[in-house]
Amino acid sequence: MKLVPLGDRVVLKQLVAEETTKSGIVLPGQTKEKPQQAEIIAVGPGGVIDGKEVEMHVEPGQKVIYSKYAGTDVEVDEETYIIVKQSDILAIVE
Amino acid sequence: MKLVPLGDRVVLKQLVAEETTKSGIVLPGQTKEKPQQAEIIAVGPGGVIDGKEVEMHVEPGQKVIYSKYAGTDVEVDEETYIIVKQSDILAIVE
Amino acid sequence: MKLVPLGDRVVLKQLVAEETTKSGIVLPGQTKEKPQQAEIIAVGPGGVIDGKEVEMHVEPGQKVIYSKYAGTDVEVDEETYIIVKQSDILAIVE
Amino acid sequence: MKLVPLGDRVVLKQLVAEETTKSGIVLPGQTKEKPQQAEIIAVGPGGVIDGKEVEMHVEPGQKVIYSKYAGTDVEVDEETYIIVKQSDILAIVE
Amino acid sequence: MKLVPLGDRVVLKQLVAEETTKSGIVLPGQTKEKPQQAEIIAVGPGGVIDGKEVEMHVEPGQKVIYSKYAGTDVEVDEETYIIVKQSDILAIVE
Amino acid sequence: MKLVPLGDRVVLKQLVAEETTKSGIVLPGQTKEKPQQAEIIAVGPGGVIDGKEVEMHVEPGQKVIYSKYAGTDVEVDEETYIIVKQSDILAIVE
Amino acid sequence: MKLVPLGDRVVLKQLVAEETTKSGIVLPGQTKEKPQQAEIIAVGPGGVIDGKEVEMHVEPGQKVIYSKYAGTDVEVDEETYIIVKQSDILAIVE
Repeated sequence: MKLVPLGDRVVLKQLVAEETTKSGIVLPGQTKEKPQQAEIIAVGPGGVIDGKEVEMHVEPGQKVIYSKYAGTDVEVDEETYIIVKQSDILAIVE
Repeated sequence: MKLVPLGDRVVLKQLVAEETTKSGIVLPGQTKEKPQQAEIIAVGPGGVIDGKEVEMHVEPGQKVIYSKYAGTDVEVDEETYIIVKQSDILAIVE
Repeated sequence: MKLVPLGDRVVLKQLVAEETTKSGIVLPGQTKEKPQQAEIIAVGPGGVIDGKEVEMHVEPGQKVIYSKYAGTDVEVDEETYIIVKQSDILAIVE
Repeated sequence: MKLVPLGDRVVLKQLVAEETTKSGIVLPGQTKEKPQQAEIIAVGPGGVIDGKEVEMHVEPGQKVIYSKYAGTDVEVDEETYIIVKQSDILAIVE
Repeated sequence: MKLVPLGDRVVLKQLVAEETTKSGIVLPGQTKEKPQQAEIIAVGPGGVIDGKEVEMHVEPGQKVIYSKYAGTDVEVDEETYIIVKQSDILAIVE
Repeated sequence: MKLVPLGDRVVLKQLVAEETTKSGIVLPGQTKEKPQQAEIIAVGPGGVIDGKEVEMHVEPGQKVIYSKYAGTDVEVDEETYIIVKQSDILAIVE
Repeated sequence: MKLVPLGDRVVLKQLVAEETTKSGIVLPGQTKEKPQQAEIIAVGPGGVIDGKEVEMHVEPGQKVIYSKYAGTDVEVDEETYIIVKQSDILAIVE
């Protein structure tokens, strides 16, 4: 199964937050409140959203920071995805 | 009886969430909070909605993920439908 | 007395929700929360509403589903009507 | 003293809700929550309100149903009036 | 000192609500909740307010009813004024 | 250090509210709730703010009344300033 | 790793608030409520944001005051950044 986002929606897959301290100890992600790093899986076509033309500026494969509290969790084939609006993506991580 | 949605409304019929574990055990859907998979039954004509031209991009028969908390449950002839706005449909499942 | 709705308002008369089980037992309508079926009694002229041109797409005699929580109950000559905006009508029942 | 409403405001005088049962017993109006019947006393000139052209469609002498919770009570010369926006008038009673 | 209002603001001076009963007994104003009668002291120039052209329709010396809860109390030279937006003025009292 | 406001922001310096009674006794300012008198220190360039052209109508040195609850306190070089939007300035005190 | 902000977002790095009293004693920053001083690290390209053309007026290296409560904390490579919209930047500190 494949998720095809509509409008200005973007399908994300959260990156496992492997928090490693400087000394190399891996800590499990504790806080649910921090903004999330994720990889873009699929990007909607944009177009007229709520009466306003929206152009898409992101593409699949990019790693991004998205706004905490944004998005909807979707479970498809036992994988969890997050569907956000492009405007909930704050920055690309290069 | 038949539901003919107005404007940018879409009539959905929820797909039974047959949650099956990897080992094949079927679990009943527990959480009401997860976004829903549904099949599109009928699509409104679009047009000028709240002063903005809305074009419809979905069609009957498509399987979709729609936003949790969105939509209105409607019971017609002992079947339950959900009427949402097109903008509450997040993605098409292919 | 006659109610003449203004703007994009529609006067509805709620249909008695005769909930009948498959075996034929009639149950009184219990839940006030379910969307309502109603018949359209009168339709406003539309026009510019809050700065936006609104065209009316419904007409008296149609049976409709309208949004729960929408509308204002009005009692005229011991009959109760509901006045809603056209945008609170979700679908026509045919 | 005379109230001259500004913009899209309308001055109403509430009609005494003489609730009479079929058998002729007059009941005092109990519920403050029901929409109100009122007579239009004065109508503002309309014009550009909040950046939008508003045309007035009501006139003094009409009996109207107005939205519950809307309007401001005004006491002038020991008479109480209600000042509402035209958009809070739901229907004309003919 | 003189208050020169900006934009669509209007400086008001509340009229002492000398509530007199028919028999001539003067009652002190009790309720803070009732809309207020006031005299216009100064009127802003209007112009583009929040992207919308606003024309001023009131002038100093007029007695007005203004919306309860609206406005900001300002104390200048031991006199108290109320600064409201023109749209908070409901009606002129003639 | 110097604060250069952006857009439609204005930097204010609160005037010490030397409340003097008629008999000449100076009272310390008690209420934090009253609107504030302040002097304008710096004025942003205006321009397109949130999609709307904003022209600046105030200038440094003017004494103004600004809306209570508006603005952000900023401490620079042990001086406290308030940064408000021009629309939070109610009137100029001349 | 590098953060590339989208749209009208700006990446900030908070300046350590070395609060020094006149006598030279350094006090640790106590209040989380005060607006923040920060240095601009990266600036988004602007463009059409929510249907409105946004031009960017800030640039990397500038020291700015930004609105308290605004922005999202982001941790990248053990450094904490704040991503805000340009409109949350109140003033440049020169």
